Amino acid sequence: MIKSISIGLLGLGTVGSGVVQIVERHQDKLIHQIGCPVEITKIVVKNLDKQRDIEIDPSKLTTDPNEVIENPNIDIVVEVMGGIEDTRNYVVKALQNKKHVVTANKDLMALYGAELLQIASENGCDLFFEASVAGGIPIIRSLVDGLASDRITKMMGIVNGTTNYILTKMSQEGRPYGEVLKEAQELGYAESDPTADVEGLDAARKMAILATLGFSMQIDLDDVKVSGISSITEEDLDYSKRLGYTMKLIGIADREEDKVEVSVQPTLLPNNHPLATVNDVYNAVYVCGEAVGETMFYGPGAGRFPTATSIVSDLVEVMKNMLLGVNGSKYVAPQFKKSLKSDEEILSKYFLRIHVQDRPGAFAAITSLFSSYNVSFEKILQLPLKTKGVAEIVIITHHANKQAYNEIMEKLNTLEVVRGVKSSYRVEGEEVL
Amino acid sequence: MIKSISIGLLGLGTVGSGVVQIVERHQDKLIHQIGCPVEITKIVVKNLDKQRDIEIDPSKLTTDPNEVIENPNIDIVVEVMGGIEDTRNYVVKALQNKKHVVTANKDLMALYGAELLQIASENGCDLFFEASVAGGIPIIRSLVDGLASDRITKMMGIVNGTTNYILTKMSQEGRPYGEVLKEAQELGYAESDPTADVEGLDAARKMAILATLGFSMQIDLDDVKVSGISSITEEDLDYSKRLGYTMKLIGIADREEDKVEVSVQPTLLPNNHPLATVNDVYNAVYVCGEAVGETMFYGPGAGRFPTATSIVSDLVEVMKNMLLGVNGSKYVAPQFKKSLKSDEEILSKYFLRIHVQDRPGAFAAITSLFSSYNVSFEKILQLPLKTKGVAEIVIITHHANKQAYNEIMEKLNTLEVVRGVKSSYRVEGEEVL
Repeated sequence: MIKSISIGLLGLGTVGSGVVQIVERHQDKLIHQIGCPVEITKIVVKNLDKQRDIEIDPSKLTTDPNEVIENPNIDIVVEVMGGIEDTRNYVVKALQNKKHVVTANKDLMALYGAELLQIASENGCDLFFEASVAGGIPIIRSLVDGLASDRITKMMGIVNGTTNYILTKMSQEGRPYGEVLKEAQELGYAESDPTADVEGLDAARKMAILATLGFSMQIDLDDVKVSGISSITEEDLDYSKRLGYTMKLIGIADREEDKVEVSVQPTLLPNNHPLATVNDVYNAVYVCGEAVGETMFYGPGAGRFPTATSIVSDLVEVMKNMLLGVNGSKYVAPQFKKSLKSDEEILSKYFLRIHVQDRPGAFAAITSLFSSYNVSFEKILQLPLKTKGVAEIVIITHHANKQAYNEIMEKLNTLEVVRGVKSSYRVEGEEVL
Repeated sequence: MIKSISIGLLGLGTVGSGVVQIVERHQDKLIHQIGCPVEITKIVVKNLDKQRDIEIDPSKLTTDPNEVIENPNIDIVVEVMGGIEDTRNYVVKALQNKKHVVTANKDLMALYGAELLQIASENGCDLFFEASVAGGIPIIRSLVDGLASDRITKMMGIVNGTTNYILTKMSQEGRPYGEVLKEAQELGYAESDPTADVEGLDAARKMAILATLGFSMQIDLDDVKVSGISSITEEDLDYSKRLGYTMKLIGIADREEDKVEVSVQPTLLPNNHPLATVNDVYNAVYVCGEAVGETMFYGPGAGRFPTATSIVSDLVEVMKNMLLGVNGSKYVAPQFKKSLKSDEEILSKYFLRIHVQDRPGAFAAITSLFSSYNVSFEKILQLPLKTKGVAEIVIITHHANKQAYNEIMEKLNTLEVVRGVKSSYRVEGEEVL
């Protein structure tokens, strides 16, 4: 019988401190569920003398990762230090030393998840990572356990709080990107270098993790096509609204037959889509299964306590497995070989805003280009511009394949009547009329 | 090593047929996850000769429940026959015969859940019931595993699709209750005797199950205060809208310190509340945890395939446990003794519509009654009525305790100026201004 469980922390930042607090506060509940006490016995930090907002027995702190990953008294390693290469080495070593690992590190899991899960399995260890996607939302459990019997066909996620905050503010308050980004930085919702968030890379990592699990197919970060929100203008948001849409940075993972597409891009959703009302820093993952139909999981995507909650829930599962002696049994290797859709196989509607010469025949020239690719229009809005002789046309197309659409985009710019393609976005979801 | 797993079905109605279809269709996925084939070998039906919309080997059908529950070759019993007393006896016998049980039966679990879980645990058996609440939404898993480490403080659920359909249509189309109910019956969304749905009993059963799990405290059906939707009028919905609210039948499970309240009633939610946009037959459960904050789980609440998916996901877990030899280990007895809030401890805002004499001092008389209980108003709307000399007043109060509110209601009816209290509803959620 196990008398108590000892946890080592790699990292004591925002999330790590949250883990310490939750393990302390909820000790009774943990003991009730698991049957034995749980203690955080060692914590690796960069700086021993740093002021912290939680009380920690100084003897627990160390700057040497080996005091956790090589420590024979530690059962479980919680990795909340971030980073990739060094961190990967620590996690590998911990697993090889038969320590279970719980991590919140999406970068690590998106890049090395397959390898690390394999090593964990070989060593009879659990490697859980619920907190790596959508902070407090138990989305990984829901995909892996809750929908275990279904065939998931599509996932759409708002999985980056920073960009959702920025787009919500831009849209609701009609303010420009740069100004809202600055505000988000001041509020701590965006980092001083916001690239990974605003260019969609953070969301791409999460979508690679979700697609790998949801489709049981190893999807690498390189497989995810990404574009970010930094070039979205107030005009785009204004037209979206007028046409009944909400703009969100959406991660899409779509499967038809045995082929998949995974991408992240600014996307227009009909206002009545469940994801359209997910605002501010909230995250949500919309999941379609062949049998279950539409489901959605909504909650905080980041933050000390939501993320720490996911970590400690993972810890509970590891500890229950320890007491049953079944660690490492949860891992299921991908069932399918990777098979990605070609551009011809990616079907979607598009929003398009272009400036054309305001003269007879201009619109006909555009229509005929689209017709030649068999792409028709669902909605059209044409307005004169202040600039004399120029009109602004906004189009929502019917479904087009991506290859055809890309060719249309190229040719549009060569048409004499076209002054410029100002913006173009994907449109998802069917409007209920 | 287990070579194959044999399942017996009690019942082959809509959901049972869905289970048969999913187990057949997803056999590859099941084998990949579990490591051995899964077969439904025996199915108990009422009528052997009934026409069915799925093909079944007639030799698998029987009218004798003992061929499943006493059958030494059957590992797992799936109970999808409904009913309470007989069904309870079958489930008890199956568990005593060391068969694991998966059920979709909310009536059974709300009434006998504690007893059955205890028997399952004593016999080293799993008893899972994900499908009993909110059909395709993996809400029980999310509460038990996903939020295992958190302290849940509040759950609000739209857990009955029939009433949500009726309220959605009444609200969107301005039609009366009776007409929409009839339509729902014709569409198969409501039963010919709709009492259990429209009077809130079905929702109450589900809330008893959720509260028991979420608060780790045995909540019985009798502990749930219930009122239904049958007396909601078009006027109520019209006023709700004008004041910025949406009316839903909401199951509330609320915990403060160690005391809880569980109830089901028509409730006004601010339009921007995540539950306010859950329409038609969809269900959703909104969960607040001390650490995680606000989360919401959305999806189909009923239907053949959504419900069958939850059942087969439970089956997957039972089968994985069988192969690991850890069945019966998931059960955790309630951590806390039941402690219910008194009416004085239940705080809420209220919507109130009253008819008063249209003369000086009428409103003052009402205000002074509320003031004497220290209850103030958040919003007031007064309109003259067609009936001469009568005015209609709609009030949203600030928070009041239920005891005081009930006393106010009684006294209101005795005030000379009051012609009648037309309706009164609970109001939940804070408006974001």
